[in-house]
Amino acid sequence: MSKKIDVAVLGATGAVGQRFIQLLEDHPWFQVTELVGKSSAGKRYGDAVNWVLNGNPPESVVDLTVKPLDAELDAPLVFSALPKEAAVDREPQLASAGHIVCTNAGAHRMAKDVPLLIPEVNADHVQLVDVQRANRDWTTGALIANSNCTVMPLVMALAPLRQFGIRRVSVVSEQAISGAGYPGVASLDILDNVIPYVGGDEDKMQTESLKMLGTYVAGQIDLFDAVVSATCTRVPVIDGHLVNISVDLESKPSIDEIITAWGTYQGDSRVALLPSAPEKPLQYLSQIDRPQPRRDRDAGKGMMTSIGRLRECPVLGYKFAALSHNTIRGAAGSSILNAELLAVTGYIPSFEPELAQALP
Amino acid sequence: MSKKIDVAVLGATGAVGQRFIQLLEDHPWFQVTELVGKSSAGKRYGDAVNWVLNGNPPESVVDLTVKPLDAELDAPLVFSALPKEAAVDREPQLASAGHIVCTNAGAHRMAKDVPLLIPEVNADHVQLVDVQRANRDWTTGALIANSNCTVMPLVMALAPLRQFGIRRVSVVSEQAISGAGYPGVASLDILDNVIPYVGGDEDKMQTESLKMLGTYVAGQIDLFDAVVSATCTRVPVIDGHLVNISVDLESKPSIDEIITAWGTYQGDSRVALLPSAPEKPLQYLSQIDRPQPRRDRDAGKGMMTSIGRLRECPVLGYKFAALSHNTIRGAAGSSILNAELLAVTGYIPSFEPELAQALP
Amino acid sequence: MSKKIDVAVLGATGAVGQRFIQLLEDHPWFQVTELVGKSSAGKRYGDAVNWVLNGNPPESVVDLTVKPLDAELDAPLVFSALPKEAAVDREPQLASAGHIVCTNAGAHRMAKDVPLLIPEVNADHVQLVDVQRANRDWTTGALIANSNCTVMPLVMALAPLRQFGIRRVSVVSEQAISGAGYPGVASLDILDNVIPYVGGDEDKMQTESLKMLGTYVAGQIDLFDAVVSATCTRVPVIDGHLVNISVDLESKPSIDEIITAWGTYQGDSRVALLPSAPEKPLQYLSQIDRPQPRRDRDAGKGMMTSIGRLRECPVLGYKFAALSHNTIRGAAGSSILNAELLAVTGYIPSFEPELAQALP
Amino acid sequence: MSKKIDVAVLGATGAVGQRFIQLLEDHPWFQVTELVGKSSAGKRYGDAVNWVLNGNPPESVVDLTVKPLDAELDAPLVFSALPKEAAVDREPQLASAGHIVCTNAGAHRMAKDVPLLIPEVNADHVQLVDVQRANRDWTTGALIANSNCTVMPLVMALAPLRQFGIRRVSVVSEQAISGAGYPGVASLDILDNVIPYVGGDEDKMQTESLKMLGTYVAGQIDLFDAVVSATCTRVPVIDGHLVNISVDLESKPSIDEIITAWGTYQGDSRVALLPSAPEKPLQYLSQIDRPQPRRDRDAGKGMMTSIGRLRECPVLGYKFAALSHNTIRGAAGSSILNAELLAVTGYIPSFEPELAQALP
Repeated sequence: MSKKIDVAVLGATGAVGQRFIQLLEDHPWFQVTELVGKSSAGKRYGDAVNWVLNGNPPESVVDLTVKPLDAELDAPLVFSALPKEAAVDREPQLASAGHIVCTNAGAHRMAKDVPLLIPEVNADHVQLVDVQRANRDWTTGALIANSNCTVMPLVMALAPLRQFGIRRVSVVSEQAISGAGYPGVASLDILDNVIPYVGGDEDKMQTESLKMLGTYVAGQIDLFDAVVSATCTRVPVIDGHLVNISVDLESKPSIDEIITAWGTYQGDSRVALLPSAPEKPLQYLSQIDRPQPRRDRDAGKGMMTSIGRLRECPVLGYKFAALSHNTIRGAAGSSILNAELLAVTGYIPSFEPELAQALP
Repeated sequence: MSKKIDVAVLGATGAVGQRFIQLLEDHPWFQVTELVGKSSAGKRYGDAVNWVLNGNPPESVVDLTVKPLDAELDAPLVFSALPKEAAVDREPQLASAGHIVCTNAGAHRMAKDVPLLIPEVNADHVQLVDVQRANRDWTTGALIANSNCTVMPLVMALAPLRQFGIRRVSVVSEQAISGAGYPGVASLDILDNVIPYVGGDEDKMQTESLKMLGTYVAGQIDLFDAVVSATCTRVPVIDGHLVNISVDLESKPSIDEIITAWGTYQGDSRVALLPSAPEKPLQYLSQIDRPQPRRDRDAGKGMMTSIGRLRECPVLGYKFAALSHNTIRGAAGSSILNAELLAVTGYIPSFEPELAQALP
Repeated sequence: MSKKIDVAVLGATGAVGQRFIQLLEDHPWFQVTELVGKSSAGKRYGDAVNWVLNGNPPESVVDLTVKPLDAELDAPLVFSALPKEAAVDREPQLASAGHIVCTNAGAHRMAKDVPLLIPEVNADHVQLVDVQRANRDWTTGALIANSNCTVMPLVMALAPLRQFGIRRVSVVSEQAISGAGYPGVASLDILDNVIPYVGGDEDKMQTESLKMLGTYVAGQIDLFDAVVSATCTRVPVIDGHLVNISVDLESKPSIDEIITAWGTYQGDSRVALLPSAPEKPLQYLSQIDRPQPRRDRDAGKGMMTSIGRLRECPVLGYKFAALSHNTIRGAAGSSILNAELLAVTGYIPSFEPELAQALP
Repeated sequence: MSKKIDVAVLGATGAVGQRFIQLLEDHPWFQVTELVGKSSAGKRYGDAVNWVLNGNPPESVVDLTVKPLDAELDAPLVFSALPKEAAVDREPQLASAGHIVCTNAGAHRMAKDVPLLIPEVNADHVQLVDVQRANRDWTTGALIANSNCTVMPLVMALAPLRQFGIRRVSVVSEQAISGAGYPGVASLDILDNVIPYVGGDEDKMQTESLKMLGTYVAGQIDLFDAVVSATCTRVPVIDGHLVNISVDLESKPSIDEIITAWGTYQGDSRVALLPSAPEKPLQYLSQIDRPQPRRDRDAGKGMMTSIGRLRECPVLGYKFAALSHNTIRGAAGSSILNAELLAVTGYIPSFEPELAQALP
């Protein structure tokens, strides 16, 4: 049996760090061997972490000693759940030192040579790693970002509609509390309440979506040519970001044509074979009151996007709802899928292809 | 001291019926003397009602015996919290029998000769009562509807913007559970969840809004000329409907001009003197994360609409959030305000104007 | 490969019925072949059911036609999620007709010849089936009940303490909304609220617990000799009943002795090998703020009881908290475990022992 | 008209500090003139505060500049919402400097010469102020504590039962999130969950209750002679602490005798005339499912305790539920009531008795 790739998790005690650890337990290609934190450095992980996910931290990591943020790491592959401020400097340093850094942080998402990946949608953007290495004199290292948690369901739902000519998009989100990390949203702010503002997310919806939907041409990404307007709100839901989307499509497809476009969408063919990929990237639900966060967030083990309620919009033409699990598909799970894509596309030197062939 | 007007409440044991009773306690002009219900007919109100509001039912009504739906009533003024099916026939019958019927039901809202009132916005639509009486051979009776609870904050926020030329409106609601009555939404459906569909409300948003914003001309309402697209969702909030609105305004006002338009809006001058009218119809909140249902629904004793987050929308031009208390301003409280308007405009024969002059 | 046993589910469209179907999907011994309902009879299950669990109903059952309540059934094994009133007559009829009926209903729990089973605790009570068959002239049929959902964590936590001489127990529950079925608790009653009363459950806590902790002697159950006082409340939690227990123990064990008693508890040795049995029946959590419903209800796939906070009680001696998943361990999952016990103890004639030996 | 007494609020930007300010608006005897905070010192209150109560901070205080914690104060009366650590030293300093300090902090509650007051229950404990002044060489100053928010409903419910001989009490609380201040409980910890532990509160329940129920004899408090066992849990409720109480009463009164004892309870006769006193200190609710936090917390403007569900307890004799609003009756409101008692009993030198006589 081939050897799994060693993995370090940065920001290991935070909410997203915990999700990385949870999802990497029993991963067929990767194994967590190093944990990195700031205030918890030097402590046993099991003692340092306030585990906010269900159950308890996996036995395989509780006895690891948390390393400080500036520690040299052995693992070739690094998953980063750092806050933006910490990510700005440390992530490029680690990439420069030869590590593959798959980050959930927003710090570098819009950098021109950093791939911002949703593998089904834009796996070919991975070629930016070559540009990046050339630009920055990196050898084996790389820095790859995953989508913001709220942008995720928007881009996944729009990707199959590009064929119809997307011109204008208006989106209103209803976001789960886990998107704000831990302790994050105070219960006194959100019980029996909605907060009609989520700092920073509206900008990300309006810009990062265009990069992800864009086209890799000659070493750079041509941004997708459309206008997006976003309103972001927070609701008393644990996990699962729901987005209500109106869209103006140039070719005026029928409702059935759009549902077919979603139903047949597979995205990049290399993705379906990755261990964290869902059976299909998205599903269209025909019930009139779906998708719902609690009932649909775990579709495809939290990696599948659910869409529903497609109907005419008197203003923009079409409207519908989409939902993704924000801390799995919109954070840790996406980063792991990105790493799997990097592995099969040859960007992780130590990856042994036999591992992939041993897939069930 | 002048005598108060006797009032009957139809559907008195339901959630909106209870709110009518609660708001009418100690009303300076009206007093509840008759309660009407279907399954509770013949019972003492205190025994029949499952009081779902805070506290307990007022002492003044607990000993009233609930009358059957087809009972002849003594009260000249009738508030109806009937479900649509029961309202269709019974409300016109009572108006025909000489009663002023102020209804929260949706059954007759779009009938051409029924005023659909938000007094600050369209008090002059009350003239439809004359048309109605002529059309239907009614003498002292009348049928007047209040706004649907979700349409309420939309229309109140848009009314002061008519001067700028409203062309297109896109709105996504986040509605409280009390909007569905009692028992209404099952807790298993809404805890830790959002339901992205509220039956019937999207249509109402797209049509009833245009009637309320319309103009009374020669015995009928010219519908307001704009296009509205609505998406209605349900969130785990007790009271308070939040709407996220994008709007296209022809004259391209500045942000400040719009805020001034809201800040100075008084609406029809007869309304400010009514006992249930808030100090002003709406307030603009400058905090970046307001309005919020729990914190702002009780503004003006639940009768004031709160607006916030006005900013540019890359698609339609402007976007903002608005909030009204759905069972007060969006239901019982609005109907009571309608009745007060009818009183001071002379449509309730038994109303003694001295009552109004005795206002504090 | 041996043939699985055909299974019918009564009350298949209700909340517990759905849980039966969900848990029986891919069961190694049983397969659902018949669904029975009242108002849904004659319909395709996929059309009749309002699926309130996460995701969607399994593909394997959506095309089954729901049979009426009085239909003759083919399946030798019947799981009943009927409401009490429907269960009273129909369950004995089916047992009389030769079916093994494992019921979640409360109708027959306290009947002297009906085993009320928590297999780890009182597997030997299964012998009542022989008494039952003799009493009622049943041949291959039987009627077996599982624990009420709130009694479940109480009995599981107390069972290992019987060795210390349990004399008095005081318990206050905080119960999840799913315990009331669907639509069950209205959201207007429970959001931002606690309901300090759950009809019927206090009596069940005080009586059914003594039967389950009791002893099978000569064809009947000697009730356990202790006094239990219960207070039952409902809280805004989806799944997982938490009980706060104070207990008076005659032999005054140390805190460590009690924790050891729990930690080493295995219960009846035949149970650990059953497919639905958790790795161990209960776990003691050392964190000061556990067990918690959301974080611990899924322990052991919802079949393990979690205990924590053991400390001295100035009034009764000891106090602690216990938690079980109410619709899995406290309902459908327990009934399935009961059926598995019946299978391996020879009470289901058509069960082929090779099935059991093929266990992983 | 007599002059109102100037008041300072310590910890003015915290959740309880905000509640003090809200309740003191329009108080007939007191007016807020100074606000004190730590991190907000030097700022305009309207800018410094993150108002977590409904609506917005009162206009009368938004322009006050927050003073630092060690500032000399002009106001003779000081309400303290300081955290325990800050209260330890600063409160006695202010009392020593001549201020009447009414505190919600737990720091000095159990000090032998500090009155721990629930005026209806133990107004005569106010005489400890004389002891305190003698002990500590204080002249016009004094330090008076109010009840912990969870102990409040327990003591109020037990006080009228002292006549029956209270021997043992077992209590399980279901506490609201506002009891933990702001930001307090993280939403990720409490949505769809119960936390079966509230740090420190179990000890307070078991000790502070005995001081409040105790007797003032010759310059000190004889603790009440009973044993209390408490379990404290946190539930997803905004305001209102519910306690489930079992009690052993020596004289074995009938259920009716107990209800009569509660129904006729007035407590100290001086209290009913105080402006913040509710019409009566407690009410017994006959509905089987009350009291409920959301529906009963605002009884008596949040100052009345609601009791219900009295029934036999097989273990201790009697059991019932009680509820108080934790941030009004269990915190700021109680402290204000304490100050009012001090005023009419002559402990606030600058209080002009004409103010009290002008009461409506």
